[in-house]
Amino acid sequence: MRETWVIGAASNRFGKMKESGREAATEVGLAAIESAGIEPRQIGHTFVANAFGVAEHQAHVGPLINTGLGIPEVPSVTIESACSSSSAALHEAYVHVAGGFCDFALVVGAEKLSHLDTLAATSYFAIGADYPFEAKNGATFPGLYATLANVYQHTYRTTPEMFGSIAVKNHANAALNPHAHFQKAITMETYLGSPMIASPLRLYDCCPFSDGAAAVVVAAKEAVPHPVREPLVVRASARAGSIADMHDRPDLLGLPAARAAGAAAFRQAKMGPEDIDFAEVHDCFTIAEALALEDLGIFPKGAAARASLDGATARDGKFPVNPSGGLKAKGHPVSATGASQVVEIFEQFNGLAGGRSVPHAEVALAHNVGATGGSCSVHIFSRR
Amino acid sequence: MRETWVIGAASNRFGKMKESGREAATEVGLAAIESAGIEPRQIGHTFVANAFGVAEHQAHVGPLINTGLGIPEVPSVTIESACSSSSAALHEAYVHVAGGFCDFALVVGAEKLSHLDTLAATSYFAIGADYPFEAKNGATFPGLYATLANVYQHTYRTTPEMFGSIAVKNHANAALNPHAHFQKAITMETYLGSPMIASPLRLYDCCPFSDGAAAVVVAAKEAVPHPVREPLVVRASARAGSIADMHDRPDLLGLPAARAAGAAAFRQAKMGPEDIDFAEVHDCFTIAEALALEDLGIFPKGAAARASLDGATARDGKFPVNPSGGLKAKGHPVSATGASQVVEIFEQFNGLAGGRSVPHAEVALAHNVGATGGSCSVHIFSRR
Repeated sequence: MRETWVIGAASNRFGKMKESGREAATEVGLAAIESAGIEPRQIGHTFVANAFGVAEHQAHVGPLINTGLGIPEVPSVTIESACSSSSAALHEAYVHVAGGFCDFALVVGAEKLSHLDTLAATSYFAIGADYPFEAKNGATFPGLYATLANVYQHTYRTTPEMFGSIAVKNHANAALNPHAHFQKAITMETYLGSPMIASPLRLYDCCPFSDGAAAVVVAAKEAVPHPVREPLVVRASARAGSIADMHDRPDLLGLPAARAAGAAAFRQAKMGPEDIDFAEVHDCFTIAEALALEDLGIFPKGAAARASLDGATARDGKFPVNPSGGLKAKGHPVSATGASQVVEIFEQFNGLAGGRSVPHAEVALAHNVGATGGSCSVHIFSRR
Repeated sequence: MRETWVIGAASNRFGKMKESGREAATEVGLAAIESAGIEPRQIGHTFVANAFGVAEHQAHVGPLINTGLGIPEVPSVTIESACSSSSAALHEAYVHVAGGFCDFALVVGAEKLSHLDTLAATSYFAIGADYPFEAKNGATFPGLYATLANVYQHTYRTTPEMFGSIAVKNHANAALNPHAHFQKAITMETYLGSPMIASPLRLYDCCPFSDGAAAVVVAAKEAVPHPVREPLVVRASARAGSIADMHDRPDLLGLPAARAAGAAAFRQAKMGPEDIDFAEVHDCFTIAEALALEDLGIFPKGAAARASLDGATARDGKFPVNPSGGLKAKGHPVSATGASQVVEIFEQFNGLAGGRSVPHAEVALAHNVGATGGSCSVHIFSRR
């Protein structure tokens, strides 16, 4: 395998986009290529994530993006793995580059659902679950993750303030992130006073529907003698699956795919959780951040939500989590989320993270979940 | 790169499926694994094509298929490239296996649209084109391919019988294919008497809407010391893109992506058109078969439709084309089509093609187009 780097990255501001998904993808794709200091014509393959393009009447969006970039002849493909679509796209790009099939690959994730009403948007999200067994019977993601939260709360006797501390921390980080959907801090009182959505999850436990686009450029080290930015060395790119249906899983105190992908990533990187300086994890709901940290072995089982309340996951804590603001507050434009996590790590390593910088970070991890964990991607990056 | 084989293949009968796309995908996936003589647990990665799963309210279908196969922990991803989705999935599987990332990969394409009315199905198909410029203004695929047919007819002074001979030949082949949607031959009179759909394309110039599923198993040669079937050696797996919008292309006498993917495949295989014994090409409309054969350099420009009328592309002709019956008569379940072409080559090389067998075939090519040519995949296979 060739040593593989992320050499460029870009994101727009998450929230409500005026432009279409393809327009946003083209814009951030070009920005990522420019940040890498290369020309579009050097891209050998484009990997697009755009799970709900059909909501804009557009499939087969890769050739349109490549045409916008001036490279229509370059092959492209759209990758879908629910909310982990763009980390799955990154994995494909990694395989192509590390395996020697191309020297430079563009990964771009984009999603636009804000033109739909909330019911329609929720229905789109829900097709990431097992439709005939879950969505068709009324289960949507707030309810499914609330089930996970209930099991966690019942087993570990957590308090509402523990989940709340995850929301408060991620909003505080997002307030410092110009890409974030919500650039405003919240207090614990605001959290505790927010309406119940699916008990025990309140409004501020839930990530928003966001539009957005994010892109990264993947390259073979040997093709980049003089990187213009501090590259992220891909130490691990691992994915795993799981029984998608929660009702068929023997254990709801974590996501089996996240445990498997995490373990595979640590094996690949020849590292352990103790080697990671900070992580971007998939906090579509606050409970998901706690489960992620336990699935990855960063905190013992049952300890992550409590550790959050103790400040361990703050930017200046023992193990900073989601300095970007996470899905919770940076926003969750489904197919842009995985790439966006890598944009954050790129900005952190390049001194571009401003007030939300994590000091002395050498190794970072990105954890991106599809739906309720039918799929999970884990990437580990280090400085050179 | 490791030598890479297709060691198993399966298809259901195209047409109207009672089962869902995921059920059909699971069934043919299992059948392909069984035909390969391996166990599901040996699969290292599943690549699914299911472009219009949203029409069944189902995205993120890989974990559901893998769970059905008894391998929920195996990573999966859904690959979309319009009508070339499953050949694009095959390309990803090839890259993973040839690059040494896994030893066995499952490629499965499935599509179900028969529960929709024709307008809705046409609308789904149309999102493979450039929506704001083409579909939104009323252009659907029959009209777009009719434009290509008009340019061809005008330039080369072809007769209706030339396009008709492609339809008659493919129906004759499909009549011998138990997987085919239309298992019935037609006469030139039937063709000429069929209603005009988009001049000059008549009903029998157009492929049908089909449900269907097809799967292949890709493996590293070194992992299969004793293949139970005659494997297809992957000599080339190439993809290319193009300006998707026909109105922006300088030349409509062919598809630029097909020319580029074909040239790349021949370079990779170190072969030329003269080395190919037969081909499965993307004949969504009869004109598309003629263009494919010219884009690939198998016939000179302007000669393919005429050659068809002369019998050159029949099973016993100089260069047999679409012995399966092609999209035209075997059917076109969008995301199953690319894999289905490989199923045909697998059956041909394994003496399973019955009355439609192409004698003495050692090397075969599969050509699969996304939409009107925004993407194209070309694969070349040989016997060991």
